[in-house]
Amino acid sequence: MNHPAQLAAIKRPLPDVFLAALQGLFGARLSTTQAMREHHGRDESSYDPMLPDAVVFAHSTEEVAAAVSLCNQYKVPVIAYGTGTSLEGHILALAGGISIDLSQMNQVVAIHPEDLTVTVQPGVTRKQLNVEIKDTGLFFPIDPGADASIGGMAATRASGTNAVRYGTMRENVLALTVVTAEGKIIHTGTRAKKSSAGYDLTRLYVGSEGTLGIITEIVLKIYPQPEAISAAVCSFPDIASAVNTVIQTIQMGVPVARVEFLDENGVRAINKHDKLTLPEKSLLLFEFHGSEHGVKEQAEIVQQIADEHGATGFEWATRPEDRSRLWQARHNAYFALLQMRPGCRAISTDCCVPISQLAECLLETKADCEKQNLVHAIIGHVGDGNFHVQMMVDPNDPADVARAEGVNERMVTRAIAMDGTCTGEHGVGLHKMDFLIQEHGQGAIDTMRAIKHALDPNNILNPGKIVRW
Amino acid sequence: MNHPAQLAAIKRPLPDVFLAALQGLFGARLSTTQAMREHHGRDESSYDPMLPDAVVFAHSTEEVAAAVSLCNQYKVPVIAYGTGTSLEGHILALAGGISIDLSQMNQVVAIHPEDLTVTVQPGVTRKQLNVEIKDTGLFFPIDPGADASIGGMAATRASGTNAVRYGTMRENVLALTVVTAEGKIIHTGTRAKKSSAGYDLTRLYVGSEGTLGIITEIVLKIYPQPEAISAAVCSFPDIASAVNTVIQTIQMGVPVARVEFLDENGVRAINKHDKLTLPEKSLLLFEFHGSEHGVKEQAEIVQQIADEHGATGFEWATRPEDRSRLWQARHNAYFALLQMRPGCRAISTDCCVPISQLAECLLETKADCEKQNLVHAIIGHVGDGNFHVQMMVDPNDPADVARAEGVNERMVTRAIAMDGTCTGEHGVGLHKMDFLIQEHGQGAIDTMRAIKHALDPNNILNPGKIVRW
Repeated sequence: MNHPAQLAAIKRPLPDVFLAALQGLFGARLSTTQAMREHHGRDESSYDPMLPDAVVFAHSTEEVAAAVSLCNQYKVPVIAYGTGTSLEGHILALAGGISIDLSQMNQVVAIHPEDLTVTVQPGVTRKQLNVEIKDTGLFFPIDPGADASIGGMAATRASGTNAVRYGTMRENVLALTVVTAEGKIIHTGTRAKKSSAGYDLTRLYVGSEGTLGIITEIVLKIYPQPEAISAAVCSFPDIASAVNTVIQTIQMGVPVARVEFLDENGVRAINKHDKLTLPEKSLLLFEFHGSEHGVKEQAEIVQQIADEHGATGFEWATRPEDRSRLWQARHNAYFALLQMRPGCRAISTDCCVPISQLAECLLETKADCEKQNLVHAIIGHVGDGNFHVQMMVDPNDPADVARAEGVNERMVTRAIAMDGTCTGEHGVGLHKMDFLIQEHGQGAIDTMRAIKHALDPNNILNPGKIVRW
Repeated sequence: MNHPAQLAAIKRPLPDVFLAALQGLFGARLSTTQAMREHHGRDESSYDPMLPDAVVFAHSTEEVAAAVSLCNQYKVPVIAYGTGTSLEGHILALAGGISIDLSQMNQVVAIHPEDLTVTVQPGVTRKQLNVEIKDTGLFFPIDPGADASIGGMAATRASGTNAVRYGTMRENVLALTVVTAEGKIIHTGTRAKKSSAGYDLTRLYVGSEGTLGIITEIVLKIYPQPEAISAAVCSFPDIASAVNTVIQTIQMGVPVARVEFLDENGVRAINKHDKLTLPEKSLLLFEFHGSEHGVKEQAEIVQQIADEHGATGFEWATRPEDRSRLWQARHNAYFALLQMRPGCRAISTDCCVPISQLAECLLETKADCEKQNLVHAIIGHVGDGNFHVQMMVDPNDPADVARAEGVNERMVTRAIAMDGTCTGEHGVGLHKMDFLIQEHGQGAIDTMRAIKHALDPNNILNPGKIVRW
């Protein structure tokens, strides 16, 4: 992947006149300290930090527009920053420029419980949102592991454990306010549930990783809290049995709200991190939403399927605090896994395949991890055919890193051959750019590039990500 | 709207060398007869026909690519044609050119019941698809009134009665094969249920009405037929009571599969057309999907809400043939309404608003229709906040047409003011182009135009639709 070097080569200091103008806009909310730049030049990926030259903290859409307009005028790269929890190098400042930190734009702008919609600024985090709307009896289901910002989640087309029932950011963003590369403010939709009014700009910006525009306001769908919720956990003699339980559940159309897989390494890590005592073998975590009776019905069907696949230790978490503990542990998995090999970094990846291919894809990937003798875990939103591989590597050992990247490459190639995708929810960032070509073919990539050139002619918006210039 | 005239002004005869080359590609499947051109130069809208200069019947993606490549070389407009059932002038050949009829590309290419996906050619119609997959126990839920082609449904981002539960084409198209303006063949996605792999080209082409590319293959989600289905019909003393019943049902999160409204005129029309005896006042048609118990539970909640709003004559259609008759009548509504005023044409429109605004929007629109003394009916997919107004006008009476267009304009302005959209499912075509600007603002329209210019630099793809050049 030689383009980071190419971009670094065109990197140049910020023009003084530009910096002065930016200072005029942001005053004390502009920083060029090393610490601030370092904080904004890394994410949760294993890449070395690549620092922006300056960081500004925006307080409004208009401020973002003014900053981007200035960047466009001086051809300075600009990268939107939320919580820094992306996993594939999305926010690294390959060519320097400025980072616009949106974390202080963290207001819930409007709650419309009567329409099941909410309007938020991009810095609102998913947990914050759910706290703020709790009294309405409604909730927002999308939950990547980290407490990510809604803006970042929209920009990476994030999903999480509830996606099998409620969809991803693709399905749950109704409309956006976006600052274009020229610094114009546009609105991509309305609060209507559906629309056939022109090109679907909302879906174009969702998942565009800050390369086509900067998202400064988001209208989301929210959902009535289900009348009843139940969660269950059970163990399986092997991975295939667990995965086949999931495949059959989905094929039968059981509307599970969540179904998560953890391999024995994943279970071991969360046991240790969250002081749990789950059996350290292949595990499924289920959650069911519905009426009292509906939840019972779903659970009975799933338990029967699981039993047929040799499930043991079926345990029900009926009390909210037990459920929370279980799901919190699941959400902590990424951080729990980081502690499996102290001093190491995680190479994290995901893919997604048609559900019938899941067992084969996951088993072959697991075998590959073991063959390469990697400290690893496989966990996943298996109801969607989506799973993650997290590999702990010594960043100073090139052979170790190469083994992990080899597993990643073979997994992606496998997923694509099965008519799946190189990333189900992490996004492209730097790590998946070459695989994007493999997945879509050069023609689709050329179309993506034509869109990038049309909407960002000076290549200032998060340059060097998703498609090459 | 002066641009049809502008486009007509630039209309020029097809170059002989172009026609000869096209003939070389399609042989007897090229036609320039008046009858064929007339058939392909009209849709179900009230616009006068605008004829293409020639029609070709494509049999493969490669043939479409060859034809479009030729069109691009000679700058000849090209319009994709499915079943001709669009409602807003989508396929009218404003600037002449060729119509590519895709109705003979009507193969179901692959059925993957184990993944709940199906791959079809664009000429497959929704009814044909459901017949062909019936044995799998799966079904495809999207059902605009007409037996439209799947390609056309994707191109207009269609929905229908089941969208409240299953979503629209936006949510149900997984991937597309598209011929670009240059005549290249691209693939926009995979069969994975979710993906974060780059720009969402699939959603960009869905709803682009043939202006960005021609869709030649579609991968769709399909669903297990529910264990139990029940349908019900009930009448209300007035429109407000019916609509408020729907609003409350949606706000409570009852997962109804269908909830359709017909005003008294709509009921009268289908009674006559389908020899039914429904009470000729505001009517709701419900359908519930789920387990035996789940369906019963949903129905009880809805019946209770309806009772509180003065519903009468609650009747259950439990036998499949009774349900089919009811839904067939609903689907025939457009054609039934056409017979309300013989010799007249229908001006048909739709809008969609946040659910809490539905009663006000629909009631004000109804009052406007009555004030204008129009022969009309209002019917709608009210669970989504979406409704249709169909007005029968004498096409030779400009005052009559103007009254209907006035109702349309005020309805759209009303919907947009309520944070709704100028079209929930019909699409833009010619009829909604000006409203698109009103809804999105000039900035978003400029962004759409930039995309159009980037992907169709010679403006050959269905020119003059969605955005002006």
